[in-house]
Amino acid sequence: MNIKASILTIGDELLVGQIVDTNSTFIAQSLTKLGYDIQEIISVKDETVRIIEAFTRALTQSDVVLVTGGLGPTRDDKTKQALCLLLDCELKSDPKVLKNITRLFKKRGYKTELNQLNKHQGLVPEKSIVVENTEGTAPCLWTEIDDKVLINLPGVPFEMKALMRKKIIPKLQKKYNSDAIYQHDVMIHNITESDLAILLEKWENNLPQSIQVAYLPSRAAIDLRLTSIGTTQQEAKKMLQPSLQSLKKIIKPYLLTAYSGKIEERLGAILRQQKRTISTAESCTGGAIAQLLTSVSGSSVYFVGGVVAYATDLKIRVLQVSKTLVEEKTVVSEEVAIAMAKGAQKKLKSSIAVATTGVAGPKKGEDGKPVGTAWIAVTDGENSLTQACFYPYMDREDFTKTITTNALLLSIRFLLDNNNQIAKPKRTQKKKVQKNKQEKQKT
Amino acid sequence: MNIKASILTIGDELLVGQIVDTNSTFIAQSLTKLGYDIQEIISVKDETVRIIEAFTRALTQSDVVLVTGGLGPTRDDKTKQALCLLLDCELKSDPKVLKNITRLFKKRGYKTELNQLNKHQGLVPEKSIVVENTEGTAPCLWTEIDDKVLINLPGVPFEMKALMRKKIIPKLQKKYNSDAIYQHDVMIHNITESDLAILLEKWENNLPQSIQVAYLPSRAAIDLRLTSIGTTQQEAKKMLQPSLQSLKKIIKPYLLTAYSGKIEERLGAILRQQKRTISTAESCTGGAIAQLLTSVSGSSVYFVGGVVAYATDLKIRVLQVSKTLVEEKTVVSEEVAIAMAKGAQKKLKSSIAVATTGVAGPKKGEDGKPVGTAWIAVTDGENSLTQACFYPYMDREDFTKTITTNALLLSIRFLLDNNNQIAKPKRTQKKKVQKNKQEKQKT
Repeated sequence: MNIKASILTIGDELLVGQIVDTNSTFIAQSLTKLGYDIQEIISVKDETVRIIEAFTRALTQSDVVLVTGGLGPTRDDKTKQALCLLLDCELKSDPKVLKNITRLFKKRGYKTELNQLNKHQGLVPEKSIVVENTEGTAPCLWTEIDDKVLINLPGVPFEMKALMRKKIIPKLQKKYNSDAIYQHDVMIHNITESDLAILLEKWENNLPQSIQVAYLPSRAAIDLRLTSIGTTQQEAKKMLQPSLQSLKKIIKPYLLTAYSGKIEERLGAILRQQKRTISTAESCTGGAIAQLLTSVSGSSVYFVGGVVAYATDLKIRVLQVSKTLVEEKTVVSEEVAIAMAKGAQKKLKSSIAVATTGVAGPKKGEDGKPVGTAWIAVTDGENSLTQACFYPYMDREDFTKTITTNALLLSIRFLLDNNNQIAKPKRTQKKKVQKNKQEKQKT
Repeated sequence: MNIKASILTIGDELLVGQIVDTNSTFIAQSLTKLGYDIQEIISVKDETVRIIEAFTRALTQSDVVLVTGGLGPTRDDKTKQALCLLLDCELKSDPKVLKNITRLFKKRGYKTELNQLNKHQGLVPEKSIVVENTEGTAPCLWTEIDDKVLINLPGVPFEMKALMRKKIIPKLQKKYNSDAIYQHDVMIHNITESDLAILLEKWENNLPQSIQVAYLPSRAAIDLRLTSIGTTQQEAKKMLQPSLQSLKKIIKPYLLTAYSGKIEERLGAILRQQKRTISTAESCTGGAIAQLLTSVSGSSVYFVGGVVAYATDLKIRVLQVSKTLVEEKTVVSEEVAIAMAKGAQKKLKSSIAVATTGVAGPKKGEDGKPVGTAWIAVTDGENSLTQACFYPYMDREDFTKTITTNALLLSIRFLLDNNNQIAKPKRTQKKKVQKNKQEKQKT
């Protein structure tokens, strides 16, 4: 059964760009896993008329509508009022919600007497069912309207997530018997998106109806996502295999890795498989590589730690980069990147280490290097692989993100490169630096 | 003049939750700065009918519609087709777009002969004006429809941002004479959102029509955002001052800082003002604190660097935490957090240092501590301030984010606490540990 869903977030803070809407992303992921077909993600103002309009539209196009935000105690929250107007019913005080608020206040060491606004939070539309929110004071509401369901969740991410995982997803699974989907990404490089599309034209035309393909290009590589739909996830996975196998044959010269998932998960999977560990020495990425590596659960098996050597002095004192080298080659140079990586690999005792040094801007580097310049190096202490980057048109945020992604990709290349796996430490190799020439041209 | 705007993002990758929609956030921020009133942010599928529907709706409710995505060369991009149907016109080949593609391919070291899909990218609706995208191959389109304007931007963030900054914002400013807005946040703590709302009720009721207030609560503090509208930003800023001053008087006992901006910008402002530097020693936050600190441009003035000591061994070897202390107190303990902070402060030579140690999950810590436990410590080498945290209901991502925010808040408290500023190193103070008791209760 194909279930259609819409996601709605309420709050002025989204419309002025004050916060990034990660709630919708989480809900979209959860519903996609259930096999739901998401029609629209909408953010609207905290205004009664706007909320009713959005509810009505979403209920017209979807079976399930998930709403976050607008349930707080202050005057800028209009959601419950809108819900009553939509349902043509009144608010009633729910003793269970009030009891939950008192319990939480007590637990958090607040006063236990409720004020008028706290009491207001205990009001819920008569036609809605309260789903207990054990982590917060805002009630979660489940409202059935004809054969459709409208679910109101609190806007605080951890409250929303806990409710989704523990209560809403099980309730939805019980109510609807939906299709299951399975997704697999493969990572492709050294080919443009359009050339890849031409290469795959015949393969795409011959794909079964139940399999879809999406191109997800980034600067450094293209992710090709295959999605299949079946009655169970297992069935969907099985159905995908022949197309995945034939794809792998066609793209063999351009295939970087067939591991699916985020780049940090892929790097983690390769490190695990090779039983190697990694450490980081970051300057311009300021901790972003370490942060991404540790975002993967279980990463402590292969991630040892890292040094954020923002000041040049730290590169010399902590990472043991030679002062003469910095003076001769400047701090943003291939040689310093390698020395930083080697310093981390030795000091933190990991199999490999990745280092970054660059100028994130908006001001020029202390050595006069232009904004957007960076060097990345990966080393196992013997061999090293480096990449020069130049992104003068990026702002600080995008620059950091791109260098971080490039650093993880370079680490994957280093690990998958046969030379690095097979090479025995020879005297001549000790000083050998492998440059990733193609990448240098591209940047 | 009050300009209404809608933001539209096109792409299946948003609807399945594969990527977080940061483009809309950036555009919303930019338009808010121009004083535009944003009506809706919508994400729709890459399907012609859906795109036309969304265009039509957005043009009904807004003067300006900004669209990202759906302009790539592959078959899953339908935006230009939808635009032609909406405008009742044909696609025509634009030689300038083709020339730009050839130029970029050459620059990136690709082949310079264009394939059929590259040529397809050179097609634009007859009724649209091409705005040159110097950073990418997808054309940016500016389409005037009666007295409204629909702007199509590429979905790649740095291309979109460069176009917005250099071309679209100046063009919009030239076309519309909009109101200006000014925003100022103050950070409040030790009071619940509802108690604060009651405290401020009279003040809110007496606010001028042109000033709006929003409550932006997080776990550790509440941001109160004041927004004023005027004909110029200067005027809007001036108009806000009396209300801001009267607010500060009322909330004095609960005011944490009147510096506006993100928490990392506030900490940076305080460090600059006090002419102090900071370093980090991170375990469970895995580099997130360093990353947030370095996300602020100019942070190299006060941020020295950090150590991500994920493995216990690194805490001992690099941060010089005593092995006996780890064995006696366990690795996730107040004592180890302080020792980590002191280690970083000494080794990295900063005025203060902040450290985290905790169990992000999903598995228990090596010392058996439950998932969600953490200790944060801030030190200047003499005095220390610590905080215990326990968030067993959060997932890895939210846990890291929350501990990171708490660590920055604790650093702000440490810097603003008079005791820490005035205290001269006395022998008795050397071992003194100040506990943030209230926080301990709350968590």
